[in-house]
Amino acid sequence: MTDRIFDRAGSWWDLPAGPANTIADVPGVTVGHRTHREKTARTGVTAIFPHDGDLFRNPVPAGLAVLNGFGKSTGLMQLAELGRIETPILLTNTFGVAACTAALIRRAIAQNPEIGRSRPTVNPLVLECNDGRVSDIQALAVTEAMANDAMAAAEMKFAQGTVGAGTGMRTFGFAGAIGSASRRVALPSGRTHTLGALVLSNFGRPGDLRLLGNRIETPDPGRADPQDRGSVIIVYGTDAPLDSRQLARIARRAGAALGRLGSYWGDQSGDVALAFSTTNRLSIDSEIETVERLAEAQLDPFFLAAVEAAEEAVLNGLWNAEPLTGYDGLRLPVLRDQLLPNRG
Amino acid sequence: MTDRIFDRAGSWWDLPAGPANTIADVPGVTVGHRTHREKTARTGVTAIFPHDGDLFRNPVPAGLAVLNGFGKSTGLMQLAELGRIETPILLTNTFGVAACTAALIRRAIAQNPEIGRSRPTVNPLVLECNDGRVSDIQALAVTEAMANDAMAAAEMKFAQGTVGAGTGMRTFGFAGAIGSASRRVALPSGRTHTLGALVLSNFGRPGDLRLLGNRIETPDPGRADPQDRGSVIIVYGTDAPLDSRQLARIARRAGAALGRLGSYWGDQSGDVALAFSTTNRLSIDSEIETVERLAEAQLDPFFLAAVEAAEEAVLNGLWNAEPLTGYDGLRLPVLRDQLLPNRG
Amino acid sequence: MTDRIFDRAGSWWDLPAGPANTIADVPGVTVGHRTHREKTARTGVTAIFPHDGDLFRNPVPAGLAVLNGFGKSTGLMQLAELGRIETPILLTNTFGVAACTAALIRRAIAQNPEIGRSRPTVNPLVLECNDGRVSDIQALAVTEAMANDAMAAAEMKFAQGTVGAGTGMRTFGFAGAIGSASRRVALPSGRTHTLGALVLSNFGRPGDLRLLGNRIETPDPGRADPQDRGSVIIVYGTDAPLDSRQLARIARRAGAALGRLGSYWGDQSGDVALAFSTTNRLSIDSEIETVERLAEAQLDPFFLAAVEAAEEAVLNGLWNAEPLTGYDGLRLPVLRDQLLPNRG
Amino acid sequence: MTDRIFDRAGSWWDLPAGPANTIADVPGVTVGHRTHREKTARTGVTAIFPHDGDLFRNPVPAGLAVLNGFGKSTGLMQLAELGRIETPILLTNTFGVAACTAALIRRAIAQNPEIGRSRPTVNPLVLECNDGRVSDIQALAVTEAMANDAMAAAEMKFAQGTVGAGTGMRTFGFAGAIGSASRRVALPSGRTHTLGALVLSNFGRPGDLRLLGNRIETPDPGRADPQDRGSVIIVYGTDAPLDSRQLARIARRAGAALGRLGSYWGDQSGDVALAFSTTNRLSIDSEIETVERLAEAQLDPFFLAAVEAAEEAVLNGLWNAEPLTGYDGLRLPVLRDQLLPNRG
Repeated sequence: MTDRIFDRAGSWWDLPAGPANTIADVPGVTVGHRTHREKTARTGVTAIFPHDGDLFRNPVPAGLAVLNGFGKSTGLMQLAELGRIETPILLTNTFGVAACTAALIRRAIAQNPEIGRSRPTVNPLVLECNDGRVSDIQALAVTEAMANDAMAAAEMKFAQGTVGAGTGMRTFGFAGAIGSASRRVALPSGRTHTLGALVLSNFGRPGDLRLLGNRIETPDPGRADPQDRGSVIIVYGTDAPLDSRQLARIARRAGAALGRLGSYWGDQSGDVALAFSTTNRLSIDSEIETVERLAEAQLDPFFLAAVEAAEEAVLNGLWNAEPLTGYDGLRLPVLRDQLLPNRG
Repeated sequence: MTDRIFDRAGSWWDLPAGPANTIADVPGVTVGHRTHREKTARTGVTAIFPHDGDLFRNPVPAGLAVLNGFGKSTGLMQLAELGRIETPILLTNTFGVAACTAALIRRAIAQNPEIGRSRPTVNPLVLECNDGRVSDIQALAVTEAMANDAMAAAEMKFAQGTVGAGTGMRTFGFAGAIGSASRRVALPSGRTHTLGALVLSNFGRPGDLRLLGNRIETPDPGRADPQDRGSVIIVYGTDAPLDSRQLARIARRAGAALGRLGSYWGDQSGDVALAFSTTNRLSIDSEIETVERLAEAQLDPFFLAAVEAAEEAVLNGLWNAEPLTGYDGLRLPVLRDQLLPNRG
Repeated sequence: MTDRIFDRAGSWWDLPAGPANTIADVPGVTVGHRTHREKTARTGVTAIFPHDGDLFRNPVPAGLAVLNGFGKSTGLMQLAELGRIETPILLTNTFGVAACTAALIRRAIAQNPEIGRSRPTVNPLVLECNDGRVSDIQALAVTEAMANDAMAAAEMKFAQGTVGAGTGMRTFGFAGAIGSASRRVALPSGRTHTLGALVLSNFGRPGDLRLLGNRIETPDPGRADPQDRGSVIIVYGTDAPLDSRQLARIARRAGAALGRLGSYWGDQSGDVALAFSTTNRLSIDSEIETVERLAEAQLDPFFLAAVEAAEEAVLNGLWNAEPLTGYDGLRLPVLRDQLLPNRG
Repeated sequence: MTDRIFDRAGSWWDLPAGPANTIADVPGVTVGHRTHREKTARTGVTAIFPHDGDLFRNPVPAGLAVLNGFGKSTGLMQLAELGRIETPILLTNTFGVAACTAALIRRAIAQNPEIGRSRPTVNPLVLECNDGRVSDIQALAVTEAMANDAMAAAEMKFAQGTVGAGTGMRTFGFAGAIGSASRRVALPSGRTHTLGALVLSNFGRPGDLRLLGNRIETPDPGRADPQDRGSVIIVYGTDAPLDSRQLARIARRAGAALGRLGSYWGDQSGDVALAFSTTNRLSIDSEIETVERLAEAQLDPFFLAAVEAAEEAVLNGLWNAEPLTGYDGLRLPVLRDQLLPNRG
């Protein structure tokens, strides 16, 4: 579907997508949403599982890139220090972080009752964007139950657009969204790997979007903010055997994707990326582990994949968005209608 | 009181303390505790106010040092990016961060209803140590109400020892604690400034404490953990006119203090320091501001003050602690009894 | 001249350029080149002066962004720690850093004989790209005399293209280069400022260039490397009153510009940006200084300016390049010929 | 020898030293000095080899900690990015970095003529302290030949004290120095590893030294600087299988050692630590590698080893120093004479 409109895509992107063109092309990765549209709320939670096992007992290596640190995510300091993820990744709105954090703690304790006892602690990982232009964020509407719902809903097949944490988001003045994409990388030996991206997209000044190199106006910015603010979270998963330092390097490339899309990484935009590898799961009980690791000189195609996947993930999210009407009447158009004005 | 036992202090430390020898020697700084001892809980919240005004409208410049990032504090990413603090600083236990975060958000909205509206967001600042050896941390006992109580209790005069967030903490195998100290710095021009430290101390391997250069055994480590883990949070305040980069440099010196005390910055210890200046309050409504700033070459005595104040703050906390009996029977001795065995 | 070909520029960029559209639009900034084409060498040195006074006695505030740290620049660690620049900035090839460093040290001592005596040291600042595809870098051809020549040649008006440090560089498979551009920013109060960029451009995979959104093929990559490697140095100057933390934030936006241009920040590309402000010069003799500083909320247009200026600076460098024939016969085309094939 | 005077050592340190109590207890590590005392120069170069093979073809994993970035070392940005060391490590004085850099480049090209050709570049690693109080640093006396001499002299057995790069250094007002020490770590499985430290020590305010908890006065500080400035470089080597992120964590613990010794990490002191592992040598020709890695929970004893080894290395350097008379007559006492006043 997106191929029809993204007609320059063939000459713009170089790497092939995976079969679903989502982060779930990485074997084992699943995604679940809980959308919450009630009264003044248009918000939600999205959960990403790097694998379907016990992440506390078998963390995955991970790396982090803070492109612009205007954000309230939790769990990042320890991710940077230890280079691993040990809970599902939850995405939500800025003031929903506390509820999601509590949900992750209680879930981890339920699965591993020694947490807080012989194993002192767990590091909940929650990232956020501010959907306050569309949803009444003062209501602190996100609950622990919603976080649990999102986690319970995780599957390989998942919706994109104005769903889950993307329900009330805005990007370059358009509605939405949660989006995803993937790329395949072939190494000289013939070995192939997948890198997928899932984005919670809520950034960009209206009128600044570059869609495959074409600047796209927003029809009616309305009361929309003339600044590049709101935040974007980019989560990368891959089955390539990479360590935490290498994954941090991949995460950093999200910045190039934001640039391509027309963002200048606004002052009040929390632009944060992280990357995990599903290969080389760690064990909290080992003394020593044997791991595979790609040589540094093999990283270039993964860097390219990271740029392309994040760029397309944002566009796929916008393409699949539904029109938004905010709690106070603000209406946000969808990109699809802007590009296909006569399709109705 | 501490002077009697710390008889080497005169030749160990070089800088004079302020009148109260606490962080509240910095004009405008106040501290409040909420201690929670019920059933299996021995925990609490401690609040630090850099000034008594509206911190959201008048943030203070601040800097951050992550010595070892094994921790779950919130608000640090944005503090590092923007170099400022815009809420009171709350200290609590690891699993109490979510409740304290929610309390800070609601308090900020109540004071500034435009948060989440015309001013999209606020950055709550909550730091933590894990009191799970003494308190039943699985109970998630800390509530928003406790956080509000701690903030309401803030005064220039405040207790030290096993109170507030320090209620269930353990340091080098001893009970406690919240501690504080201050130092006075005189510049060549005759100008003088105060730097104070408040620590939430929960670190150090039993038997590793160096008290002014003397290694101190712990009488009975019991089931105590033989590792340096648990975390320590060091908060510095000063009335010296310093910018966020300079304050980050000061915060980093907490690492030297931990070294002096006998810590090796353990793997599972979240050792985090931050520093704020009460001079040059910012205004969220200004376009441009005129600020004073100390020249870099004047920082050395402040670095020394940071080492001495953090070192003594930990010792003052331990000195003022009461014996702890954990929810499961673990008993932690107090340093004072170890040093003065016959005082009873 | 560039306007004719960059016909999309009007709708691509939003901010006006300064009168010369170079970094020298920032009052006080000058640039000098020393081009060295002899035998197997096609290399050189470019010098940037933030002001025409004694930089050791009056450093300028500065910030740093390491986008990808595959590089051998010197002086960056101290720049990051102290937030200031205290020598001219020299650009050269990778193996020319040592000679340029020695030249800066000797120059500083000559001007301030107390360096190495009562003032222990000076921090030379030299950044580099690898021109080894075109120039015989094994020859270590750059000398202290060349560095001195470049500094002696500094003026407000300076050449762009395959000159100075840009003599042997390659960008997206094209020849060159040193380039520059500037942008004007107007604040709500009416106050205006200039931000300029000078780039040493040696990055990008052949065929990856996006020129204002159009992907540009390279006619004959020849033996050109199919990876995005080689490095790019972006130097920003501005007369806006910004402190070192804010300048580091501006420097980071160079990453968005590289993304727009088609780079994925290649593994073996040292992509480094720095930014200085000519306002609020420091004095090494002060105890305390009074400085102006823009409020954080005013930074957005400067971030946009940083993206636009770096993007156009790279293009201006390529536009002004002359065809290159490497020491071993490799021929690099120029972008201008690719875009205007019949102009001959 | 040191044991006689360090009579508290048994109760101060917990871990056993290796057989030589130097960094060369790590199998494969060698150290060489070139001391240069002529006319006004009292300076030199020290070389450390992580292994005796070709470091360019077989780099070692490494990590970095900048405790205080007031320094002019080269090679650190790329070390941090790629997590590896690919040349010998050279230590010298501040203004000798350029000569040592050039020596490393020429040596690497001689061994691997494809550098600057098919393999574009090499990352020379040179760290420095400022010996300008004792040696006439303005003379830029260090030459490429001296760097080559130091490398040629590398052996398992090497001198400590006022030799090599330590020839003109000053620590807490005392003469010197280069020092080294090592510690043995036993893991739960019975597996044992060695961690060694080599320090170039030139830091600390006269009168601030804490020798195993005892504050040591300096007899006659003379014209000595009353600040903690001058720098200290700590190089760790280990045969434990650790990756670059873990090695960076180990390097950071040098900060605790400096704190124990009495330093407050002075403003003008470049306090830099790095750590390498001799296990899991990389190969520049591999696509993928299989490596062993210790689990994170095993790091604690290595952190303790890092603190103890760096602390004792500084003391061993001071103990082995000879009295220094500076080029301008400044005389620096040796610690040994201060502790054993009647031994003459």
